[in-house]
Amino acid sequence: MNEPVYLDDSRNALIALDQTLLPHEQHRLELTTAEQVWEAIKTLRVRGAPVIGVSAAIGAYVAARNIVATTLEGFTAEFSKLCAYLNSSRPTAVNLSWALRQMQSALRGDTRDAWLESLRECALEIYRNAILDTESIAAHGLTLVKRDCGILTHCNAGRLACMGKGTATAPIYAAHDAGYNPRVYADETRPLMQGARLTAFELHQAGLDVTLICDNMSASLMKSGAIDAVFVGADRVAANGDAANKIGTLAVAILAKQYCVPFYVCAPYSTIDAGTPTGADIVIEQRDPTEVSHMWFSRPSTSPGVKVYNPAFDVTDAELITAFVTERGIVRGPYNFFG
Amino acid sequence: MNEPVYLDDSRNALIALDQTLLPHEQHRLELTTAEQVWEAIKTLRVRGAPVIGVSAAIGAYVAARNIVATTLEGFTAEFSKLCAYLNSSRPTAVNLSWALRQMQSALRGDTRDAWLESLRECALEIYRNAILDTESIAAHGLTLVKRDCGILTHCNAGRLACMGKGTATAPIYAAHDAGYNPRVYADETRPLMQGARLTAFELHQAGLDVTLICDNMSASLMKSGAIDAVFVGADRVAANGDAANKIGTLAVAILAKQYCVPFYVCAPYSTIDAGTPTGADIVIEQRDPTEVSHMWFSRPSTSPGVKVYNPAFDVTDAELITAFVTERGIVRGPYNFFG
Repeated sequence: MNEPVYLDDSRNALIALDQTLLPHEQHRLELTTAEQVWEAIKTLRVRGAPVIGVSAAIGAYVAARNIVATTLEGFTAEFSKLCAYLNSSRPTAVNLSWALRQMQSALRGDTRDAWLESLRECALEIYRNAILDTESIAAHGLTLVKRDCGILTHCNAGRLACMGKGTATAPIYAAHDAGYNPRVYADETRPLMQGARLTAFELHQAGLDVTLICDNMSASLMKSGAIDAVFVGADRVAANGDAANKIGTLAVAILAKQYCVPFYVCAPYSTIDAGTPTGADIVIEQRDPTEVSHMWFSRPSTSPGVKVYNPAFDVTDAELITAFVTERGIVRGPYNFFG
Repeated sequence: MNEPVYLDDSRNALIALDQTLLPHEQHRLELTTAEQVWEAIKTLRVRGAPVIGVSAAIGAYVAARNIVATTLEGFTAEFSKLCAYLNSSRPTAVNLSWALRQMQSALRGDTRDAWLESLRECALEIYRNAILDTESIAAHGLTLVKRDCGILTHCNAGRLACMGKGTATAPIYAAHDAGYNPRVYADETRPLMQGARLTAFELHQAGLDVTLICDNMSASLMKSGAIDAVFVGADRVAANGDAANKIGTLAVAILAKQYCVPFYVCAPYSTIDAGTPTGADIVIEQRDPTEVSHMWFSRPSTSPGVKVYNPAFDVTDAELITAFVTERGIVRGPYNFFG
């Protein structure tokens, strides 16, 4: 099983590749309780908006097996609490709440076995659809890619974040499969290094031509003409097309505008939140300062007492986005994802 | 002696704070040979355009004491070779070649003692003027700063890079001294972390309000309105005003333009190279890939075999620069530094 997360029915467990250990160790976690799933999402062992959604769905199912309740009403109440708890693990990715709402809507049946089976079926459908979505994004995205072109991506919206072919990486894998020979540049993506640890790792492993850069080097590359297109993912897209994604995405979009490089956001419709009017309404998660100053380093990068600003995401304004690449097709502005 | 580099006459040595060990250790090197000075510049133990210039001047003097020659002609020939060697340590900072040319022009006298004394005097003048330049930049730069304002800086063009009050930090120290209470944001500055290790360190030590950010977070701060001005240094300014500075500076300038934040380059005239017509003529040093993928980390950030792009500098176009803050005053565009 090559997917980063999946359901193992024989163990009634969510199996999840621990992404905090990549690229050095490929260790799979076996998660069976709500607390384990919550911790895995919170600490980014599983991460990436679609994979968070799939993990929450499968995680909710396996954890629901621990619910002690004899009526559907009682079971539903307990399951709602479980979903609310899982939903509290991270605030920004809408796929998390979307998947948990799907699961709650799916719960039905006359017996405990039927309740659990309804949840299992819903989780597996979310899982399968996540993979299918990336295939569709790949097909649509390929139409935007030229032969021998240079592509920049930020963070990891690859297979590891999104299942299947990934979202931002879907057009890249498709271009590779089509023999287009893309040159890929991966922003290392401070502070959590998802670009270095995950994107460069997965693309290199898949045989692509990938070059790692620091986040502050993309302007230099764009100015030199090395970049023909930018593909990134999204954690939440507001109804007006503003898109929250990993911190640093906004800067890439502004640089792309300066150098007339098309800037594409690849995301399934499950990432679009019609209930959020604009990017200003998206809650941005602030994370632990030590992720910036201590994590990964053999010694802290700065003096004790220095303050740190560490937002996990920023919001790219809709007018900076050339198009969205979705499983339903390419969507160009002006964007209207309201209801 | 609080300066990062200085001449110790009692030891006939260039004393240099080893900046690769900061902020953890404050270790001073005692350099007496051309090879030691070359190595210290090459490996960034001393760094920052003005400090490189001062180090080369003092280093050339102390190394010249080892020259075995009995005529001024012979001594001059050996000293020229020595200067050419030191000049090969790094290609981008014009202060290096500028200081070495000054030293070669200064060499005169009838006796060996006189030759050495002419070099010593020239080196000390370069040293003293570097400090005075930062005082003047501070005074001019202060006129650009408002009370309680947010200031972003990139890399380290502070005391450690430039002597005295630094260049990019000169208006910041001046604002602090004037009681303006500036909030400073320091880009950590990948891959060599000069912002985290040096700028945040020196500003925090001096009692300023400093917040460390990753390089990819400045757009988010500018969008929120937290940044009122950007101050950076320069390694070489072309005659048309294009300015080479630490990789990532170009991106900050483009973001500042997007958010209408004034972008100031602080540099003494010794950084301006009238002989370089435009930024396209500036040689950009490419450095070792392991600086990106291995250095500082407890484990490599990516898989073996992944390629790395690691330019030390980029060139900010003159039209993105609101003004230069020099020791002679504030210079606004259109720039004309030709001869």
